Amino acid sequence: MKVVLNSGERIDDLQLKDLSIIQNTKMFCFGIDAVLLSTFAKVKKGDNVLDLCTGNGIIPILLSGKTQANSITGVEIQKENIDLFKRSIDLNKLNDKVKVIESDINELAEDFFQKEFQVVTVNPPYMIGNHGLKNDNQSKTIARHELYCTLDDIIRVSSKSLKEKGRFYMIHRPFRLVEIFTTMTKYKLEPKRIQFVHSKVDKEPSMVLIEGIKGAKSRISVEKPLIIYNHDGTYTEYALEYYGDMKNI
Amino acid sequence: MKVVLNSGERIDDLQLKDLSIIQNTKMFCFGIDAVLLSTFAKVKKGDNVLDLCTGNGIIPILLSGKTQANSITGVEIQKENIDLFKRSIDLNKLNDKVKVIESDINELAEDFFQKEFQVVTVNPPYMIGNHGLKNDNQSKTIARHELYCTLDDIIRVSSKSLKEKGRFYMIHRPFRLVEIFTTMTKYKLEPKRIQFVHSKVDKEPSMVLIEGIKGAKSRISVEKPLIIYNHDGTYTEYALEYYGDMKNI
Repeated sequence: MKVVLNSGERIDDLQLKDLSIIQNTKMFCFGIDAVLLSTFAKVKKGDNVLDLCTGNGIIPILLSGKTQANSITGVEIQKENIDLFKRSIDLNKLNDKVKVIESDINELAEDFFQKEFQVVTVNPPYMIGNHGLKNDNQSKTIARHELYCTLDDIIRVSSKSLKEKGRFYMIHRPFRLVEIFTTMTKYKLEPKRIQFVHSKVDKEPSMVLIEGIKGAKSRISVEKPLIIYNHDGTYTEYALEYYGDMKNI
Repeated sequence: MKVVLNSGERIDDLQLKDLSIIQNTKMFCFGIDAVLLSTFAKVKKGDNVLDLCTGNGIIPILLSGKTQANSITGVEIQKENIDLFKRSIDLNKLNDKVKVIESDINELAEDFFQKEFQVVTVNPPYMIGNHGLKNDNQSKTIARHELYCTLDDIIRVSSKSLKEKGRFYMIHRPFRLVEIFTTMTKYKLEPKRIQFVHSKVDKEPSMVLIEGIKGAKSRISVEKPLIIYNHDGTYTEYALEYYGDMKNI
């Protein structure tokens, strides 16, 4: 498949079933968060998956390789990302499985909410509105800061999109864990499983992976810590399991 | 100091400033939970501390040795525990500092809530009402199951007892973390710091230590994991720091 690459763009080999992604180095490029979330999320054969704040489509593309989902739909607000995502879909011949919706998540039409989704995934902006340093680059700022959607918006839309007992998967920063739990319970997305990600065993976690189940009872499993590096800087065995074939990307 | 010991009772040396505790082997004896909570809790010089569900008084006695609190008040419902606690206070000559209130926490008189406390500590029953196997022994069952007070009761009474910006410290089971966070926020005790306790690095946490601050804003620190044992069964350095002089009890 021949694709057009514009200035600043490159094709990255995902080391997963010959999948690749087109990224623009001037925009937000995917990180370890997306890879971890795509492993943490449990997607069953035939599931319809919705990925909010999908960016350049990294999570739908990874899930297309890792799971037997029936369909994976990404929603994204930035036109430049939609353009990258569509060309990656063509490049990977995923047109039958992966769909793109260009929209603000708060402006999805009412007929979108047919409760067709068994799974929602989201790697949202981590930083609250005006807090923290903002990137001069508008595209990166939107990816990192809650300019166009808040945590409340994301969880409300996720819950509204899911079937009863549907599963919600998010990666976020631990400092917002209380807000995450209270907002999830507000929208009946019960937090059922979390895992903290630590660069090393003696460091505070830098990320937290969260599974919620719509309409479930309150009882959560906290998994063993996901520690990325040994003291000598090599990957831990558990991190290698998480990365699978993708350990060199 | 001469003390009366009844059948089934023993005096345990706490290996902390010559402190001891009288325990009855037929009743609930303190465990690692109490030791960890007494290290996790930040008690400043001159603070007045309230310990709910104090049992035989292990936490007030440990805090009397580890901190420079002005006073430490334990509330307990079981007469047999009150009797043990009072004799331990005599044994350790703590009558000027440590006080005992025999009461159901739900029946504390309104004049108890003078907001004199800077700190509340609690090592509550972990199990919900009728869930899980109950011990035939009534005293142990009360210590482990929420027969006389629920998590909601404990957090409501803690919040009501604390001054504004007062600190709340609890140890609990991770599976109830969502309920803990939502109940704490309901009573304006904002969860500000948590630490998970793992027997080994590759195990799920068995306990969670929680700090709340009354009236604080939402933002939580998740600390590095407290891992008790190395793979060879020896204590980790961090666990030894936590235990301090008490590592052999």
